[in-house]
This record gives sequence, structure tokens and C-alpha cells, in this order.
Amino acid sequence: MTVNLKNFLNPKIKMSKMGEFQELQPIKGLEISAISADLYGDGRDDLALFYFKDGANFAALYTSSKITSASINWNLKIKRHFVKALMVNTKNANTLTGIKGAQGLKEIANSLAKALTLKLSQSPTGASEIIKITDLLFASTGVIGEDFPHTKIKNRIPELVKKLRSEQNKYVWFKTASAIMTTDTRPKLAYEECKIGNKLVKISGLAKGSGMIAPNMATMLSFIFTDANIPSVFLKAILKKVVTTTFNSITVDSDTSTNDMVAVFATGTAENSKIYNVLDPKLQDFEKALHRLCLNLAKQIVVDGEGAKKFITIKVIGARSTGMAKNIGFSIANSPLFKTAIAGEDPNWGRIAMAIGKSGENIIPNKIQIKIGDFLVAEQNRKAKDYKESEVKKYMQWGSIEVEVNLNIGNAQHTVYTCDFTHDYIDINADYRN
Amino acid sequence: MTVNLKNFLNPKIKMSKMGEFQELQPIKGLEISAISADLYGDGRDDLALFYFKDGANFAALYTSSKITSASINWNLKIKRHFVKALMVNTKNANTLTGIKGAQGLKEIANSLAKALTLKLSQSPTGASEIIKITDLLFASTGVIGEDFPHTKIKNRIPELVKKLRSEQNKYVWFKTASAIMTTDTRPKLAYEECKIGNKLVKISGLAKGSGMIAPNMATMLSFIFTDANIPSVFLKAILKKVVTTTFNSITVDSDTSTNDMVAVFATGTAENSKIYNVLDPKLQDFEKALHRLCLNLAKQIVVDGEGAKKFITIKVIGARSTGMAKNIGFSIANSPLFKTAIAGEDPNWGRIAMAIGKSGENIIPNKIQIKIGDFLVAEQNRKAKDYKESEVKKYMQWGSIEVEVNLNIGNAQHTVYTCDFTHDYIDINADYRN
Repeated sequence: MTVNLKNFLNPKIKMSKMGEFQELQPIKGLEISAISADLYGDGRDDLALFYFKDGANFAALYTSSKITSASINWNLKIKRHFVKALMVNTKNANTLTGIKGAQGLKEIANSLAKALTLKLSQSPTGASEIIKITDLLFASTGVIGEDFPHTKIKNRIPELVKKLRSEQNKYVWFKTASAIMTTDTRPKLAYEECKIGNKLVKISGLAKGSGMIAPNMATMLSFIFTDANIPSVFLKAILKKVVTTTFNSITVDSDTSTNDMVAVFATGTAENSKIYNVLDPKLQDFEKALHRLCLNLAKQIVVDGEGAKKFITIKVIGARSTGMAKNIGFSIANSPLFKTAIAGEDPNWGRIAMAIGKSGENIIPNKIQIKIGDFLVAEQNRKAKDYKESEVKKYMQWGSIEVEVNLNIGNAQHTVYTCDFTHDYIDINADYRN
Repeated sequence: MTVNLKNFLNPKIKMSKMGEFQELQPIKGLEISAISADLYGDGRDDLALFYFKDGANFAALYTSSKITSASINWNLKIKRHFVKALMVNTKNANTLTGIKGAQGLKEIANSLAKALTLKLSQSPTGASEIIKITDLLFASTGVIGEDFPHTKIKNRIPELVKKLRSEQNKYVWFKTASAIMTTDTRPKLAYEECKIGNKLVKISGLAKGSGMIAPNMATMLSFIFTDANIPSVFLKAILKKVVTTTFNSITVDSDTSTNDMVAVFATGTAENSKIYNVLDPKLQDFEKALHRLCLNLAKQIVVDGEGAKKFITIKVIGARSTGMAKNIGFSIANSPLFKTAIAGEDPNWGRIAMAIGKSGENIIPNKIQIKIGDFLVAEQNRKAKDYKESEVKKYMQWGSIEVEVNLNIGNAQHTVYTCDFTHDYIDINADYRN
């Protein structure tokens, strides 16, 4: 089973038909477990542990919010570029939980370090390595400002460690991706492979997120695992570049979370030849593969946007700079009036123009051309001559809608992905905590 | 009948009880008419004409959008500070209507100038003054990008001019305010009076707007008439100042229109002593009265926000600068997650914190105190010790909700007004053009 990415781009296919999942491959050096601490009270999985038995290089990017969760604060203090494990909990964001939240996390870290050290000592090789709390990363997602249930989580750590397995078949990946969800209606998984030199390299990635999605770091978690052997500092450079046009180019509701995190972990078990330079051409293929994977996950987040019924691609071309194109793209993508028009299947291109106008960018109104799908709807500061609303109205019924804005004043461009704004968004968010 | 402004501020009064209108006073030197050109096809009034028989000083502020209607473009070309008439049409915004839209408006201007010149020549005094098209201002509101129905409007101009009356009783003001509405559910009217020197000065104001409301110039039209004798240049200075904390401090959906306009017209018939200086203390009372009037109209726009069920006041205090307070206020007020939580009567203060965090302002998380109504809900980076959710939940059922954020890092403050985000907003905007 593979997700056909064309589904996202082909407007003839309704989104309800996109129910397929890509089959992820195991990453050597990684062990995974996912269990329930019953944080939701309904028995669903809510804890996930990713353990790198020989450690992993990593790179992580975090939310741009000035108010951040205890887990993000923890990670930011880890100065090393080599870690042993990542633990994720859902249901509670551990944000605005004061000193108690930070202390609770530290207790969890101590327990986890101890349990992993014990596991090591019991392994057939009987390694006597000691895992320190500074070897550990954390991520949390869920409600903000509620007491962090650290005891409930801590009590489940022995079980969580005990369940660690290096066999990652599709069920394991599916279960783990499900264990990090909040209001997501489906887990998000993606797989890519590429070559570094003559070695095949695997990349398996998970993500969660459906509301509070806007850059920087669309409100989301994404954890990507590869067996590539790449120094952390190069991983970071590549990740930053890739995220700009993927996770940081999506928006559901313009709201930025306090907990966003995307991280790549590289176990090095693919044994590719050592990389000494971020510009090494051997990395090009990896960067492309990572980009495809991140774009795939980012699109899955948009498709699963709270209440979303339509996937929307907004391409701004002919801009003076990428920044200008991006700003105008997001001005359209975040406009409630535009998003409700799409929900109503109304080709109200006046709202696209309104959003271009309010962006504050120095555009020239009568140079702008607006297309919906393949239909030119506006140019020369008015409705296009051959515009037939009936045709465009038919197109608006499709599950995936493309908007192209040509500013005709330069050569820069940027593409932004979003979804429509429906009754269901209101339902989900008016009653989120009940 | 007067609107009790306390209704907006007293959370014990549900908004459905705010159905009363203030009685406006006639402004000497102003004549008004409102008729139907049947632009909506249902016979409702859609044209309004304001005529100043001896001219009026004026000041106007326009949308910050880079894409503007033909009427705004027209007004921006009028360099004089003394005009004879303002004509307003609803239903069609005359935006993105190309050269045809601009030409149509010019035809209308020619017809209107001719009709007003004719009226003057027929008056008992038989004045032979000629009204020029540069004596005229225009405003349009409605759908963007549809052909401007200039012939339909032009044909009604003789009737519009014929109906001009200097008697402005409450029915005339109500009918005129109704004639400039689009999706508004009720007309917006406000009245104030003050003294300039020893002369009583009257100020009667109208407004429209319910969606596409965000600064600068919340998507709205507001026309204010006074008999004060104030030079246009001072009117402009006062209007700019007043608008900052009134019309530019409201938001319904963060979308900015292409047609926003607020204007003050001063006929000078109150015969107050001449003003030579904008800092003249005699103007203080006028500025205060204009501020009360604009705030009243701005709040009426929010209360009538598309689908709004709750009026929300967000006060940010203890900021390093007014800009910081305003930015954080709007970050909260424009957050769909915050607005849907209010619609759901859920005291989800985590979303207030999220919106503070995403504002990008350099705050200190553990100094922030958040209050909902009189209840302290968060401080020291966590839920407040005495916080009782049941109490706050009860408060959330009221029609008017107050949020106070104390950043505790300075002395600046700003207040922003908004409404909640409901199903009805989606309904209204998904099907706006049908």
C-alpha cells in the first residue's frame, strides 16, 4: 500500500478516497514502543518511545512561539547533537504548567534514564553503559494549562521500555503514529529512500497535527528516522531548508502552537561513506528525498485539518521576492472569508483579490492574473473576458482546489497549502476540552 | 430611545437585548435622501445621497488595502478639502471592475453634478452655482469583481436628488443607515453633542459593516456629520487619532476590505468661533465626543459581526509599548481557536496564552497574568491557584466577555474589540453571493 501523492494534486479525486497509508520500512538502530497511560480515560495509546540503542545524530526545529511547553524548554537545554531516546506523550501539552510541569518532566526523565539503563544491563551483551537524562528528548501535545499528569506517565515507563522492539512492520508504525495524535482523525506516515554514495538509505517519518496549524512550525509534531550516517550539523542545515517549503508552508487556522517540533534522527546504520561537507553532492539525493517526505507529511496534516473538506494549493508566482510570494500566499490561505468561500464551493475570486490587497505587499493591481484550476478568472483589474462562472463552479466541487496568482512583477514564487473552513472546525474547537 | 452603552460592557445583559437605537439629531446644512435602484432585486434601499447645500469641510480615511475600489480611487484624487455631496451605493463594491468600473463611476458623477446644479437653479433663491464632479465623493460596498451596474444607478439619480430633504428625523436616519447595509442585520447609528466655546455642536454618525472587518479601517463604511465649524486639516488630525482606538481596534475576521472609508463632514452651521490651532482647548470636548461616537459605532459593528453571538473586549495592559499591547490584543482577537472557544463558552485560557505566544512580541511568560471577567485564571506560567473552572464557565455564558492580559513589563495598554466565531459565520460566508 502506498499513498499516491498524485491524489493530493489531482482535483478529480475526492479526499474521502485518500484513505490509504504508505508502508514504512524499519530503521536499523531504532526501537519503538507505544502504549496507553490512559490519559484520555478511554484506553487509547498516548505514550510513544523511540530508542536508539547506539545513539543517533539529530536535528530539531521548534515553535516560534514565545510561550513554550516544558518539553520544548527541556530540549532547548540539550546542547549535545547525539541522543539516546525521544519520548512523546499526547493529551497534555505540559504548557503553562509552571514549575510543577517542569519538575514532573524531570521526574519522568529520571525514571526513563533509569529504566533504559536497566534494560541495557539486562541485554545479552550486558552493556554497562549508563543513560543520562541529557541523552533524552521529549515532546508533548494536547491541552494547555492543565496539570501535567506526570505520575500517571511515570508509572507506565517500565512497561513502555519493556515493549521496545526493533521490528518495525507497518502495524508498529501505524500504532506509533496513532499514539501521538490529538484531534487527528488519522495517523500520518511517510516513507522515502535514496542513495548516499552507493548505499541505500531509508527515511521513515511520522507526524501529527490538525488544528492550531500555522508556521513557523505548523502546530504539529513530526519525527523522522533515517539510517543515514550524517553529522547533526549537516542534518540541521538540510532540515531547515526543507521545512521552509513544506511544514512551514502549510496553514489550517493561522494559529501557532506552543509545542511544535520537527526532528530528524539518523542512526548511521546504513554505513554510507562519511560526509565532511554539507555541500557534498552525495547529500543532494537525501535532501530531495527528505523534502518529498516532509511535503507528503505536511499535506497529510492539511488534509486532516480540523473540519477540512477540501485541500487547497495556493501558488503565487511572478513575485519580486520569495518573501513577497509567501506573504501573499499566507494572506490568502489564512483569510476566513476565502476559506469559507471554498467550503461553500463558491468561486468568489474577489476574496482572493481582497487577501492579496490586505497583505501590504507592494503589488500592481492591474498586472495581477488570478487562476482557479486552469481557469483564468481575473486580469487587468477585473473579471477575465472569457470567464464562465458555471465552469469554475463545477471545478469548485472537487476535493482539491488550486489557486494561482501571477503578480507579473518578478520571478520569485512560493506555494502554500491549506484547507477550507467548515462547520466542523467550529464544532471541534468550540468543544475541544469536553 | 437611546442605546445604553453600558449594555456593551455589562456582561449580565445578553446581546439579544441590545435592540435599541439612538435617536440622531438633524445637522443644519445637510440634506439626505435614500432610495432603491433595485440592485438587490428585492426593492430594498441601496442608494444614499448626502448633500451639503453650502458645502462642508471634511476629512476621510481609507482602507490600507493595496487593491481599492473605483470609488476610493476617485476620492483619493479629490485634493480639495471642501465638498458638496457624498453618494453611497450598496450591493456592488465597484472593485476589480477594471476601466469600465471607473468609467461608470464618472458617468454617475457627471449625472449627479448635473442634477444637483439643476436643483440649485430651481431653488427659491435661484442660485446659479455650478456643481462640478470634483465637488463629489463616492463610497461603494458589496460584492467585488462583478460588473458595476452604473446605468441602473445613473437612471435613479434624478429621483435621488429630488428626494433630498433637510428634515432629518429618526426615521430618515434609520432609513439612510439601512440603505448602506450589506449583510448587516441592523443599521448602526450614533449621536453625540458637545460644546465648542459656548456653542452647542451636534454629531450624527452612521456606519455599516459586519464581515471582512479588520483594521486598518475595519471593513466598514462610516459617515459622520456635524454642524461644527472646524477646518478640514484639523478634522483630519482628530479623526486619525480617534480612529486608532475605535474603528481600528475592532476585528471580526481579520480580513480587510478594498472599500473601507470613514469620513467626517462639518457644515459649520453651529457657528462656533473660528479654530486656528488643532491644539485649541476648545476642540478637546469635540474630540472626546467624536471618540465616544466612533467607539459606539465600532462596537455596534462588532456586535453585528457575521454570526456573532458574543461581544468580546480584550484589554492588554502592562505592555512595553502601545504597539506591543495592540499586536497582542489582535493576535488574541483574530485567533480562530480563541474565537471558537468563546463560541463554545469554554474558558480555554490556554488559547489566550497561545495567541500571546504567537504574537512574536518579546514577553516574559511567567510575568503574565490572564483574567477572564473578574477571575484570575493564570499567572506564574500556570493556572491560578484559586482558579475555579465552574465559576468561569458560568461567566462564559454571558453575552459580553472581557479578557484582560497583564504583561507586567511596562505601562502601555490597548483595548481591542471582537466577537466569537460561530456556525453562522460559515453559513453567511460560504453562500454570500447566492
